[in-house]
Amino acid sequence: MKLSASLSQLIDALRCLPGIGPKSAQRIAFHLLERDRNGGSQLGRSLTKAMDKIGHCQSCRTFCEEAICDLCQNVKRIDSGLLCVVESPSDILAIEQTGQYVGRYFVLMGHLSPLDGIGPNEIGLDQLDNLLITSDVKEVILATNPTIEGETTAHFIAELCQKNQVEASRIAHGVPVGGELDLVDGMTLSHAFNGRKVV
Amino acid sequence: MKLSASLSQLIDALRCLPGIGPKSAQRIAFHLLERDRNGGSQLGRSLTKAMDKIGHCQSCRTFCEEAICDLCQNVKRIDSGLLCVVESPSDILAIEQTGQYVGRYFVLMGHLSPLDGIGPNEIGLDQLDNLLITSDVKEVILATNPTIEGETTAHFIAELCQKNQVEASRIAHGVPVGGELDLVDGMTLSHAFNGRKVV
Repeated sequence: MKLSASLSQLIDALRCLPGIGPKSAQRIAFHLLERDRNGGSQLGRSLTKAMDKIGHCQSCRTFCEEAICDLCQNVKRIDSGLLCVVESPSDILAIEQTGQYVGRYFVLMGHLSPLDGIGPNEIGLDQLDNLLITSDVKEVILATNPTIEGETTAHFIAELCQKNQVEASRIAHGVPVGGELDLVDGMTLSHAFNGRKVV
Repeated sequence: MKLSASLSQLIDALRCLPGIGPKSAQRIAFHLLERDRNGGSQLGRSLTKAMDKIGHCQSCRTFCEEAICDLCQNVKRIDSGLLCVVESPSDILAIEQTGQYVGRYFVLMGHLSPLDGIGPNEIGLDQLDNLLITSDVKEVILATNPTIEGETTAHFIAELCQKNQVEASRIAHGVPVGGELDLVDGMTLSHAFNGRKVV
């Protein structure tokens, strides 16, 4: 049986969503057509608008509809002299939810991965270099993910900071709060032991 | 932290997808913006077009961009005198994949559910009644889902067929091919025993 053109086009297009295969795409398309046409139309409009309008902040590279994002324009954050380097804009959301950090961010939009052709310029380290030279940053907090690539990237940026005579620090690794010790992997445990503090 | 307007609108809109909560919606939005903007734009266009253009076949009620769908215009299917009643257009896809059935369909777009306000007219039984009177249907095959609501709906349609002196049959229930007997539920097993055939 041949599906109508718009329907098979929709099923194909839905496969750009992460984790959605042909069968789920079909299920979603039928769900929207049968039960939620308004939601589907609204999603269509929102997607078109978002993909069209959302660019990157010229200063910190996060997602933003203006040239410079709100966080980068915040005087309190600029004055703090702190710059937190993260891999992705969703990391900013997670950090902001703690309400602990008042400072600026810099989003790499990835991590160093030479085998995939992602070098320092692809993750905006030239821009970060400029930022360290031109603005009054006193400490760079390296909050890349605790993966091999994230650690390598953090190491690389730490050297960049050293070159610019800016202090660099790495967020602590250890046992997560509320976690159980016997479920924690060995690497995390050794970090927890090496990073122990006097009580 | 306040997300940009288009971004939070997109995250809200993504929640119309089945099984997508606030966290997954955020993950999908960031994924599309970071890694697949073309896919996102394409999906936006496809959704808008599909929700706008796809209507229902005037004869069998399946999804269709024209007034009458291909299956309903097929002379071989009309001549067969068979009409298969299903709950949803995706059931047609499943049946067509077997390649066994050559006949027309009628899609209820749901099942009888008086508590939710879904009566005979909401699932198009007035239209089915008309179809039985005006066209040359010899047998109605009831292929609604084997659930309580599906069985009730099938029973109701069987009575409609009797009134119009058209034969009605129900698809067989039993142990699925390739299934293991000890994993099959009791209801299915009793159907399998009651529906046993002489070898």
